[in-house]
Amino acid sequence: MNQPAFTCITVEDHHPWCAIKLNRPDVANAMSLKMVEELTTCFEWLVERSFRCLILEGAGKNFCAGADINDVKNAKGDNHYLQQLNRAFGHMIQAADRLPMPLICCLHGAVMGGGFGLACVSDLAIAMHGTRFALPETSLGLIPAQIAPFVVKRIGLTQARRLALFGERINAEEALDIGIIHHLSHSLDDQVAQVEKAVNAVLKCAPQATAATKQLLHEVQDSSGLDALNQILDKAAIDFADAASGEGREGAAAFMEKRAAPWVQPVENFKQIIKERHH
Amino acid sequence: MNQPAFTCITVEDHHPWCAIKLNRPDVANAMSLKMVEELTTCFEWLVERSFRCLILEGAGKNFCAGADINDVKNAKGDNHYLQQLNRAFGHMIQAADRLPMPLICCLHGAVMGGGFGLACVSDLAIAMHGTRFALPETSLGLIPAQIAPFVVKRIGLTQARRLALFGERINAEEALDIGIIHHLSHSLDDQVAQVEKAVNAVLKCAPQATAATKQLLHEVQDSSGLDALNQILDKAAIDFADAASGEGREGAAAFMEKRAAPWVQPVENFKQIIKERHH
Amino acid sequence: MNQPAFTCITVEDHHPWCAIKLNRPDVANAMSLKMVEELTTCFEWLVERSFRCLILEGAGKNFCAGADINDVKNAKGDNHYLQQLNRAFGHMIQAADRLPMPLICCLHGAVMGGGFGLACVSDLAIAMHGTRFALPETSLGLIPAQIAPFVVKRIGLTQARRLALFGERINAEEALDIGIIHHLSHSLDDQVAQVEKAVNAVLKCAPQATAATKQLLHEVQDSSGLDALNQILDKAAIDFADAASGEGREGAAAFMEKRAAPWVQPVENFKQIIKERHH
Repeated sequence: MNQPAFTCITVEDHHPWCAIKLNRPDVANAMSLKMVEELTTCFEWLVERSFRCLILEGAGKNFCAGADINDVKNAKGDNHYLQQLNRAFGHMIQAADRLPMPLICCLHGAVMGGGFGLACVSDLAIAMHGTRFALPETSLGLIPAQIAPFVVKRIGLTQARRLALFGERINAEEALDIGIIHHLSHSLDDQVAQVEKAVNAVLKCAPQATAATKQLLHEVQDSSGLDALNQILDKAAIDFADAASGEGREGAAAFMEKRAAPWVQPVENFKQIIKERHH
Repeated sequence: MNQPAFTCITVEDHHPWCAIKLNRPDVANAMSLKMVEELTTCFEWLVERSFRCLILEGAGKNFCAGADINDVKNAKGDNHYLQQLNRAFGHMIQAADRLPMPLICCLHGAVMGGGFGLACVSDLAIAMHGTRFALPETSLGLIPAQIAPFVVKRIGLTQARRLALFGERINAEEALDIGIIHHLSHSLDDQVAQVEKAVNAVLKCAPQATAATKQLLHEVQDSSGLDALNQILDKAAIDFADAASGEGREGAAAFMEKRAAPWVQPVENFKQIIKERHH
Repeated sequence: MNQPAFTCITVEDHHPWCAIKLNRPDVANAMSLKMVEELTTCFEWLVERSFRCLILEGAGKNFCAGADINDVKNAKGDNHYLQQLNRAFGHMIQAADRLPMPLICCLHGAVMGGGFGLACVSDLAIAMHGTRFALPETSLGLIPAQIAPFVVKRIGLTQARRLALFGERINAEEALDIGIIHHLSHSLDDQVAQVEKAVNAVLKCAPQATAATKQLLHEVQDSSGLDALNQILDKAAIDFADAASGEGREGAAAFMEKRAAPWVQPVENFKQIIKERHH
């Protein structure tokens, strides 16, 4: 599968890492149905090509200001179409959540509605000082329908209630406090350095162990009850044994011999790549 | 249904918003069975009358110091009666949790036991500097039986363990850090301004979309597993389509035409109302 | 059952409280299969002897740097053995999680892998300034298999993703921010005072009510759905009534008469005990 052609997003292939840019800067990267479809296609391509790390960001002055209100308007109240439109977005965000490789979101400007939802499924979220977060749906008579589960998983019911029911707009500092994001950056250079560090960290970790760990975290989050816990732990022991007799043997040997494990792959020219892109 | 008569609480009807005051200041608003019954009745009345926002606060020097120990004492070890007494409180707190309109708790003084439980089901909690939070049940040989689930949902197992098992008393600053409350106020004026802002925010949001969103958040919190997630997202898409072809059409039109949506209703004379009440 | 003999841990019996020290300081208290077995045995002994509070700490410069990599190496890729080894650790951590008495973890130095997992099941975690936390498994080609569920329960999916997938090392201040620990201490004296305060708090609480409350918190965390909630609340009301007509009657009487309840037991010579141990 070659890299598909896209019009709403741009994709930079720096295998083993990849950067996707939401690219409708004129409309604050509003999440149209076409952008949703392109992202879904792109995620499939990333999995097939075994990328080890994905960076997701927004072109222009914002990460993503939410759904494209024109899609809603153009639907002219067609209930069935609106349903499909909404669910398609949900399928895309589920796919993003379950990507086998770590997903890093670089946030700036407006991170609202669907953009907020995407940030909530990242494995690492880094926001520029000045980033604004909100769930404005109810003020427009709409529901954060496909986003709510990922917001609750991200920040818990307590903060989700406040943000979804009062439409409160919060800044990056507060987003850090309540756990929407993990890191705050104070300049573009700062953000580039943080992302480079994160990509390097991913490329130091064994790819199969990383995918298995990410899946395990999701299974834990999705389960409930003592029986489920025991099942997860039993299965996890099998996965551990598989890892320990596979990648883990190489990892242990490398550790003992004080050399890099075979999967370690430093990012090269990261700053250069990012720099050129801005010219 | 006219406003019922109450003796343990006072109710101010400023439709579309309402303020309930726990009103047994001599005993730190201890949550007697009678108060529990009055709150339950009042919640039903609020739903029937389609209020859009509820403010809950305590008269005198405290929000609520917990259960009325006299109820326990007067039970004289009658196991069946104690069970009913306890469960009645649980039914009330469940009703508060599921109110279709946003619930704002204004906290000050002691917020303990049952008072702590009530704070945990608010959609927005604002506490005065100096507010004290604790779960003192086990130090009295009792169990935070009807409260524990709402504490765990509010602040997670990690903090619930500490507060319930060590009886630690925490202040408003720490309550903000661990997510019991959302905002801290440093004076009464400050708190009034924060509540006014919150009520205004609610009255800018579409009432049906708000109720549907609140219900969705609860469904998410109450579910587990991938199947449940898919069911929620499928149902949420239907709700989205209903909203988008109902309130949402008016919301989108208002947004495009840069005018207020029909449901927007600014609070009038909020500070005046609060002021008069204190005279 | 007399106190069993141990080689990897030391146990100090100061009934009603007990201190366990992980005692393989030469290898940063690496969690060997033998240490896992000793801890499991010791937990059974604690339950049988009705201890009311357990302190867990590490000898030497670290709390615990994780699994003993030699166990993995010596397994020589024996998949079945690796599975058993891993699951045995999981059984131990489950037992620690479900101890009926409060568990206090005193952390310093490295708290990694399995050590991180143990910290995540404490009821109160106090870390020295300078403590370092990490999940380095994937960088070794391994999976945090038996730890992941307890990490997710402790700090939520958002932070678990970051720590498990990027192998980020965090310090005690950040561990406090994201809720791995509850308190930070800036000196040994400071830590001793915090632990003494915590043990005293436990010994002020009724032992049966404490055990019932701890179990209730776990049931809440393990359940999902409205039916489960109602079941829990119904059962909790029965437990409340039992408590209120048992320990609770004595607690209420003591409260009314302004005297200590019969179970209150101040810790004596705590600082002295700790001091002597360091000589």
